[in-house]
Amino acid sequence: MKIENPNPIQWQFSERAQQLQSSAIREILKITQRPEIISFAGGLPSPATFPVERMKAAYDKVLSENGKQALQYGPTDGYAPLREWVANYLSTEGSKIVPEQILMVSGSQQALDLLGKVLIDEGSRVLVETPSYLGALQAFSVYRPEFQSVETDDHGLVPSSIEPLAKGARLLYSLPNFQNPTGRSLSIERRRELVETCARLGLPLIEDDPYGALSYKGEPMPRMLSMNPDGVIYMGSFSKVLTPGIRLGYVVAPLPLVRRLELAKQAADLHTATLTQMVVHEVVKDGFLNEHIPTIRNLYANQCQVMLDAMAEQFPEGVTWTRPEGGMFIWVTLPKHIDAMKLLDQAIAARVAFVPGAPFYANKPETNTLRLSFVTVPPERIREGIATLGKLIKDQM
Amino acid sequence: MKIENPNPIQWQFSERAQQLQSSAIREILKITQRPEIISFAGGLPSPATFPVERMKAAYDKVLSENGKQALQYGPTDGYAPLREWVANYLSTEGSKIVPEQILMVSGSQQALDLLGKVLIDEGSRVLVETPSYLGALQAFSVYRPEFQSVETDDHGLVPSSIEPLAKGARLLYSLPNFQNPTGRSLSIERRRELVETCARLGLPLIEDDPYGALSYKGEPMPRMLSMNPDGVIYMGSFSKVLTPGIRLGYVVAPLPLVRRLELAKQAADLHTATLTQMVVHEVVKDGFLNEHIPTIRNLYANQCQVMLDAMAEQFPEGVTWTRPEGGMFIWVTLPKHIDAMKLLDQAIAARVAFVPGAPFYANKPETNTLRLSFVTVPPERIREGIATLGKLIKDQM
Repeated sequence: MKIENPNPIQWQFSERAQQLQSSAIREILKITQRPEIISFAGGLPSPATFPVERMKAAYDKVLSENGKQALQYGPTDGYAPLREWVANYLSTEGSKIVPEQILMVSGSQQALDLLGKVLIDEGSRVLVETPSYLGALQAFSVYRPEFQSVETDDHGLVPSSIEPLAKGARLLYSLPNFQNPTGRSLSIERRRELVETCARLGLPLIEDDPYGALSYKGEPMPRMLSMNPDGVIYMGSFSKVLTPGIRLGYVVAPLPLVRRLELAKQAADLHTATLTQMVVHEVVKDGFLNEHIPTIRNLYANQCQVMLDAMAEQFPEGVTWTRPEGGMFIWVTLPKHIDAMKLLDQAIAARVAFVPGAPFYANKPETNTLRLSFVTVPPERIREGIATLGKLIKDQM
Repeated sequence: MKIENPNPIQWQFSERAQQLQSSAIREILKITQRPEIISFAGGLPSPATFPVERMKAAYDKVLSENGKQALQYGPTDGYAPLREWVANYLSTEGSKIVPEQILMVSGSQQALDLLGKVLIDEGSRVLVETPSYLGALQAFSVYRPEFQSVETDDHGLVPSSIEPLAKGARLLYSLPNFQNPTGRSLSIERRRELVETCARLGLPLIEDDPYGALSYKGEPMPRMLSMNPDGVIYMGSFSKVLTPGIRLGYVVAPLPLVRRLELAKQAADLHTATLTQMVVHEVVKDGFLNEHIPTIRNLYANQCQVMLDAMAEQFPEGVTWTRPEGGMFIWVTLPKHIDAMKLLDQAIAARVAFVPGAPFYANKPETNTLRLSFVTVPPERIREGIATLGKLIKDQM
């Protein structure tokens, strides 16, 4: 059936496609999935925390009771009872969230893509933290913005540094709780100042919050969403508190924006799987997360402490790192002359892996930084891997 | 916690977002979901065909045997065994498809979005059939192409009309089997001519094929993919042969393109749900579709015939329609002076609904056309609805 002598196609990709790059992390992960490697590189939650039996029972129940509906097309904005649950979950005494503000998405990465699609033109100014979440940089990059890196310190983003960068900006993207990659959190005073600054400047503030519930002390910080629901776009996810492989998250936005996001989602993939949304609603509707999340927190808090203790013991003077109070990541700063990318080559040869920090910077990378995750590695292997890393770093001092 | 006196945000949407429109169909569907309305408007498959028990057993099996893997993040290109299954399914004697050419996507609507993202710049020429699938027009529109409408006749797209429109074009989008909206299929000679023409012009040819397996006579037409795997981009879906609410499809493309699509997907939503892919693989791997698809065909063929018979009886002279040999849709052409949009208002008042044809045209709409779906309406209600429609049309002759 083949036709003869076809011309080979000279592919002409769109300008935006020409700058698509694979996430450095996903490339590193391919190398580091060999079992002999102790990998601190992953951004994956620990599968030990996945409530497999609970999910299985929910799939069985939903398919038994509402199988035809669960397997049929559904509305673009999402499964109504789950949107109601999310609205209740996010409402506070002073600040009520309504289901109409909520769009269910296929993981919060999709919310980043839709926000970029709807808010960013070529050359639009977009403000991000220094460093920032790589997946956000990647999603926004497709729409070719001009990134402005906002100053950060040990307490996270510095609100007073925003105004000089904000002229004509379309959005500020922040990850205030146990940030990926640094593990830092924004203090309550900073949150307030950030919300006020953005409100004064008329600058839409994105609050990306995948890790907020994973506070080791149990008391999550107040959401910036609650401080100004008309100016804050909030992104939530079931990936870190339930399971990531089902791809389910949500975005909460003021009505004019959420309707645009809904139209963009309709064109992008019609809607997120009906069955997935019904099952997650079945799992969470009676308070399951209240009993489940503490088990995740305990596991991660313990492994984080093991890593921090090992670092204190094994890393030489001149190396500094963050001390996260939640989430999945520790951020390490080496002496200026050590290039984390080169260190990675040596580390992999010694069967340890991490993610170099450079790809997390929108503009000038600090090449002496790296990200460590402790959540999928057992304590004994954490100690072993940190000892190896410490030795490699000492060799370069 | 709320801050005081925030400035209301003056939303500045991207240029592409300003032209986002809701699909006319989804708006009509909202009106026509009341149970008293006989709706020929839907594009939904019949839930009577959903293999609920089979799916339930597969969810149970996958979660019991591989729960942790199924609920974890997965690779962007898809679950390897399912990609292998798809590659085998699509391979023919003369034309082997390899898994590396396949990207799993969240329903084939996502493939349309990714193709638009990677191939279309503002003002890029894009060739489409007249009329064409609304979801494709919607997905591509986001990237602001210049649509060129290619001539069609009763045998589908007319290949000889392509060349004058093709200069600098980025792609030609076609739906050769039981097209949505017309129900028409491209003849085998036309397929060959189309593939040859596109190959000669170096024009990427998209073959969107959600309905190909639903041939009432059982023998699917050869895929254009097999005629020129280096020049044809093929889109497949599990929505019409299994269930749509799980959102699972795939795109097959030459390697340079499929790698770009994969990068675009990584930025858009990381990957399609692992669990969904493992479950579908479990369902289809031992040939289930071979026994299942004929039951769908039989149901649809029967209801299609009921509708065609009722139309022959009830519709006045001067009205013409297609006679599909598969798929889900019949396309009706009214006398020029009847506007299907106005007819819809009268029809809804008389408790019957359909989709007016105008939104399916990229350029000059023919307002005297409409699309009917017969798959979700029982025979008795098909007869009743067509009788009502026939009466309304006669009143306007």
